[in-house]
Amino acid sequence: MRTIDLIQKKRDGGRLTREEIAQLIAGFVREEIPDYQMSALLMAIYLRGMDREETLDLTEAMARSGRRLKFDVDGFVADKHSSGGVGDKVSLVLVPLIASAGLFIGKLSGRGLGHTGGTIDKLESIPGFCAALPLAEFKRQVAEVGAAIAESSSEIAPADHKLYALRDATATVSSLPLIASSIMSKKLAIDSDGLVLDVKVGRGALMETEERAEELARLMVDLGQRAGRKTAALITAMDQPLGRMVGNALELREALSALEDQGPQDLEELTLELGAELLLMAGQAHTRDEGKTKLRQKLRDGSALAKLQELVARQGGDPRALEDPELLPQARGRLEVKARQPGYIKELDALAIGEAAHLLGAGRTAKGQALDHAVGIELLKKVGDHVALGEPVALVHYNSEERLALAKSKVEAAFTVGAEPPAPEALIRKRIA
Amino acid sequence: MRTIDLIQKKRDGGRLTREEIAQLIAGFVREEIPDYQMSALLMAIYLRGMDREETLDLTEAMARSGRRLKFDVDGFVADKHSSGGVGDKVSLVLVPLIASAGLFIGKLSGRGLGHTGGTIDKLESIPGFCAALPLAEFKRQVAEVGAAIAESSSEIAPADHKLYALRDATATVSSLPLIASSIMSKKLAIDSDGLVLDVKVGRGALMETEERAEELARLMVDLGQRAGRKTAALITAMDQPLGRMVGNALELREALSALEDQGPQDLEELTLELGAELLLMAGQAHTRDEGKTKLRQKLRDGSALAKLQELVARQGGDPRALEDPELLPQARGRLEVKARQPGYIKELDALAIGEAAHLLGAGRTAKGQALDHAVGIELLKKVGDHVALGEPVALVHYNSEERLALAKSKVEAAFTVGAEPPAPEALIRKRIA
Repeated sequence: MRTIDLIQKKRDGGRLTREEIAQLIAGFVREEIPDYQMSALLMAIYLRGMDREETLDLTEAMARSGRRLKFDVDGFVADKHSSGGVGDKVSLVLVPLIASAGLFIGKLSGRGLGHTGGTIDKLESIPGFCAALPLAEFKRQVAEVGAAIAESSSEIAPADHKLYALRDATATVSSLPLIASSIMSKKLAIDSDGLVLDVKVGRGALMETEERAEELARLMVDLGQRAGRKTAALITAMDQPLGRMVGNALELREALSALEDQGPQDLEELTLELGAELLLMAGQAHTRDEGKTKLRQKLRDGSALAKLQELVARQGGDPRALEDPELLPQARGRLEVKARQPGYIKELDALAIGEAAHLLGAGRTAKGQALDHAVGIELLKKVGDHVALGEPVALVHYNSEERLALAKSKVEAAFTVGAEPPAPEALIRKRIA
Repeated sequence: MRTIDLIQKKRDGGRLTREEIAQLIAGFVREEIPDYQMSALLMAIYLRGMDREETLDLTEAMARSGRRLKFDVDGFVADKHSSGGVGDKVSLVLVPLIASAGLFIGKLSGRGLGHTGGTIDKLESIPGFCAALPLAEFKRQVAEVGAAIAESSSEIAPADHKLYALRDATATVSSLPLIASSIMSKKLAIDSDGLVLDVKVGRGALMETEERAEELARLMVDLGQRAGRKTAALITAMDQPLGRMVGNALELREALSALEDQGPQDLEELTLELGAELLLMAGQAHTRDEGKTKLRQKLRDGSALAKLQELVARQGGDPRALEDPELLPQARGRLEVKARQPGYIKELDALAIGEAAHLLGAGRTAKGQALDHAVGIELLKKVGDHVALGEPVALVHYNSEERLALAKSKVEAAFTVGAEPPAPEALIRKRIA
């Protein structure tokens, strides 16, 4: 069928067959189908939707569009994805943690675009760290170290790279089948035995309502399972930032603290829950509690931290920076943000904190932009904490007075103080498997 | 606002303001807005629609995108548009007819794409006829001759040319606001005092149902009137071809016959109705009947035919070809198609006849293709006529045996014969003003 007939079919609410979707994706990657036809199709998909079958076919066609990666290891290969949030440094803890427990994980990560950097940007706070691993070296490192974290390669699911750029320019990003197929195509292109998904919900997340987050999680779990992969998802709160640190080097420091079993509590809780899912899938634990206990032990005995040191050293980073955080980038100035009224922190707006960090220089506005690894926000108080009038609630780490002025009022406005302590809310909202 | 925000607004069913639409069209013509953003917007418009106000704003923005044409004449300037049908040679009769009655008309026409050629292709059957008039010469001819028929210029409404090419490749043609704004932008770019629209309905027409045809007609009349132009539309039947001739030179011959007041009846009826509308607008008739009588007189006294001769001569065509149709292209072979059963012609499928003419070589498949002016189909019987078994119902004019074989069965299948005479149906279904 001609491309225009397939656009018309979707425009009129029809469903595309597996062969039709394969033809569209292959033609697009070979540049036989021009961008203007694909963007019309994307808008038709956005407005008409795709059913499960179509979404799986799209996901698999994108996964097939480039190289497929298979690890040569004798053990359980895990993978993890987070839909992204403010202060989310879970991968920095989880990857070495599960590797120290005997699982294998080769994680390809994007660079951040928006509030703060991505996992790669946070690791690049470490002098010398190299994220641009050739796929052969990436495979070798996973086999030899048990873990690697590298920049996502254009060789993996190139159809997704091309499609995402087009979606980004045509207001077709926020479509569930397009989001799910984009994420899962990159996961399916890399062979793994089990995949855990962290789908965030709330003010600082891609999905603002629990219904949409659950819909996305169910769709992705279904796609993973239909493709023959063990897949589970947690829906987790992203109303306030995760942990106390927001900003690249600051988040790396906090991850190191968690790897030394020194919290913060929410980061540890989420990391252990996600890790326990993977241990269950790998048959290395019979219950979630047993899994968590095993993993906590790896934090306590230092083996998780040692695994991160091994990974960093292997990727060219200076391992001394992990022991002496003074070797990590530090901002020139610090400013306390103070409570403007006494009471209990009722809300701490993750989106506003993310935007403040972005204003300080911790994030990117355009692809390829440099970012400032040192700047960020340290939260001294979080939701439920009591504050006196004038008590510091946050510490802004800044390198420019001008940027500070913009960020400070954002940070102030992010805190809402009330007379009564708010009802506690669960971090982990739902498990979907 | 950024282009992506405007796409998002339409995607979510919002309405675009006059300024937003102006910005989109201007940016697109200057190539600051890429095709892939515009095609996503077109699909959003296709699926979400546009209200009257938006459609008018779009029409006017497209009309403003190139040169505006104003005729230097002391009299009423008329214009006419047909949504196109099989055997529609009305312009060839109407243009000289109303010019002979003292109105001025400068008609820009497209070349045909599809079944048969357009008005320009039909006129190009005349040896030497030149349709590519520079706009200055076009204006001069209208002032001096009263009438000109030229190929549409890319200087007029260039936004429409660019948008149409994109719609054609992205399954976004059949949207009422996009169809109406495309047609009307070209009309509004050329100054006229009154415009009559012939909106066809039926098997051989753009609009297959009377509801859609009426919706399109009302929309276009509204757009014309809001833009301060006298505008009226007729909804006319296109179930069977108009007249008896289908094919470029054949249709020119039939138009000459109508200009000599020798029918066919349906072509004459439609031409007089459309012409009477224009005479009413111009104040040259007080009733439609008075208008028709005046125009019929111009056919009878030869002044309408003389005006076509003047127009053709001015545009380089050989005027002898109008007096001696032997000088027009003629096909090498003719084949009779015979009735396969006796009875009354119940249906004569305009679309099938159009396709048969196309198969013979009378139409184009791609822009710029040459076409065969000589070939086509002469209908010896039309709906309501009685036929005996084996009596000829059509004469196929062909230049290639191979093409004839394809076309012949199409022509045969176009005729449906029944035992009873069908109830007569009106050619002119509705008047909208």
